[in-house]
Amino acid sequence: MLKALQIFGSSSGLVAFRWKPHATSGFILVSTNSLSCSAPRKRTRRPYLVLSPFSTRKASSSRALRVHSTGSESKMDASSSPPPSVAVQSAGIVRKINFCQWCGGATKYEIPDGEEKMRAICTLCGKIAYQNPKMVVGCLIEHDNKVLLCRRNIQPSYGLWTLPAGYLEIGESAAEGAIRETWEEASAEVEVVSPFAQLDIPLIGQTYIIFLSRLKKPHFSPGPESSECRLFSLDEIPFDSLAFSSMLVTLNLYTEDVKAGRPKFHYGTINKRPGTSPSDIHAYTLDYHLQS
Amino acid sequence: MLKALQIFGSSSGLVAFRWKPHATSGFILVSTNSLSCSAPRKRTRRPYLVLSPFSTRKASSSRALRVHSTGSESKMDASSSPPPSVAVQSAGIVRKINFCQWCGGATKYEIPDGEEKMRAICTLCGKIAYQNPKMVVGCLIEHDNKVLLCRRNIQPSYGLWTLPAGYLEIGESAAEGAIRETWEEASAEVEVVSPFAQLDIPLIGQTYIIFLSRLKKPHFSPGPESSECRLFSLDEIPFDSLAFSSMLVTLNLYTEDVKAGRPKFHYGTINKRPGTSPSDIHAYTLDYHLQS
Repeated sequence: MLKALQIFGSSSGLVAFRWKPHATSGFILVSTNSLSCSAPRKRTRRPYLVLSPFSTRKASSSRALRVHSTGSESKMDASSSPPPSVAVQSAGIVRKINFCQWCGGATKYEIPDGEEKMRAICTLCGKIAYQNPKMVVGCLIEHDNKVLLCRRNIQPSYGLWTLPAGYLEIGESAAEGAIRETWEEASAEVEVVSPFAQLDIPLIGQTYIIFLSRLKKPHFSPGPESSECRLFSLDEIPFDSLAFSSMLVTLNLYTEDVKAGRPKFHYGTINKRPGTSPSDIHAYTLDYHLQS
Repeated sequence: MLKALQIFGSSSGLVAFRWKPHATSGFILVSTNSLSCSAPRKRTRRPYLVLSPFSTRKASSSRALRVHSTGSESKMDASSSPPPSVAVQSAGIVRKINFCQWCGGATKYEIPDGEEKMRAICTLCGKIAYQNPKMVVGCLIEHDNKVLLCRRNIQPSYGLWTLPAGYLEIGESAAEGAIRETWEEASAEVEVVSPFAQLDIPLIGQTYIIFLSRLKKPHFSPGPESSECRLFSLDEIPFDSLAFSSMLVTLNLYTEDVKAGRPKFHYGTINKRPGTSPSDIHAYTLDYHLQS
């Protein structure tokens, strides 16, 4: 299950994006209409507000990261001259935390002792509310030189094709989560064979973890969140009807690897090109692409 | 920065573990004294309470996962006979959410429409509070056939050795986070070379993402959270004075890979052996070990 609600919040959610803090040490407010890329059909309806900078102490000294292309690989480092604290070049997505989940007290935003970033701190019990990226886990299932895709029966990206994938739950490993999601979305029993890709999407606070997998039995059928499940040969993959940029990147890398003779493990960052439509899943750059 | 507070909560935190739900569809309550493995010195002080099962609908049909060892690799699948929904064989760690972070309303635990798991739902605004595993990102820095380790100047595992690593923040990629943590803990400017390992620890809701890296400049010195930073040749690595099981696994895999001639990418699950001391970082099994 991969639903926008978990990341994008409801109509009352407040969303702020941080963009190139090394230049402004602040925020640029943008609409999710132009920036969200993996769950484009969910909208927040109220005006966006600046919440608070996560990092004020380091923002002024933060610097951009660079990619050194070396053939098919690239390496990432911090740019030169001290201090070398790393810029968060990508944008982040957060919702303001107003109350403590544990005691119900109102929160204030401050930098806790010994930390570097602004956090929501409870004014009653003093607990800190951390917000961290979430993992989306899924399976790229190989069967008879084809791959299994599911047609989404839910928003966002209703009617478009995806690998079975969804949020990793507390208490399960990434492989367990990927197997569970595959059962839920494609009623397919799979065996995880090898890790295939980790794709970070800092803009929306998600990391995709994809495993190469195989069917234990040649049976599959759509679960409640899918309208159709189907095996595609590589030249049949519906690249113009995929649900998310993450799936496009994964299937592109897989297709290239198969043609080259051997699947590798890929790490990369998906950055949506600013100003492009969220429904244009092709409007991204794959940065910091590393392979093993 | 890697602090126990973020996962283990404070003295008022409530912790429950789910263990083999396919057998009981419920919880077994255990002390973190016997189960926590990566942040062993942080303790919760109040009695643990059962919060609520995450998954009631599927619990009765859940089944265990098996590992098929095939030489140096293993594959994971769901066991036989339908229904094949996947068991969360590992334990989970959660704290009960009492109040809505957004509106301050009291929560109730129910299974939302279209979902499978119990969630904390706000009784006022209806929003669902999701809890997901967190990513810990770090660097395995190679320099002159040595690796850089930091001696911890903070709890947990004060005085023990670790790779520079800490929680991934919203708005950054895993590689950016690993570079930032390396700067914070070792004042070292590094270049990320390749992904090396993903190690899930379902028991405590953490996933370690480790990158092979190299120093951009041959300079490093302890940051506030480290008392010492030092380069170790492979036969000098202080395997009996490492801070966490995750570091032990990472450095063991790395040492084996170097001896075999080539670092690979490793995926695996670290499961603490039940009944062993949390301070015994050797008391684990590495399950579902896959390589690319």
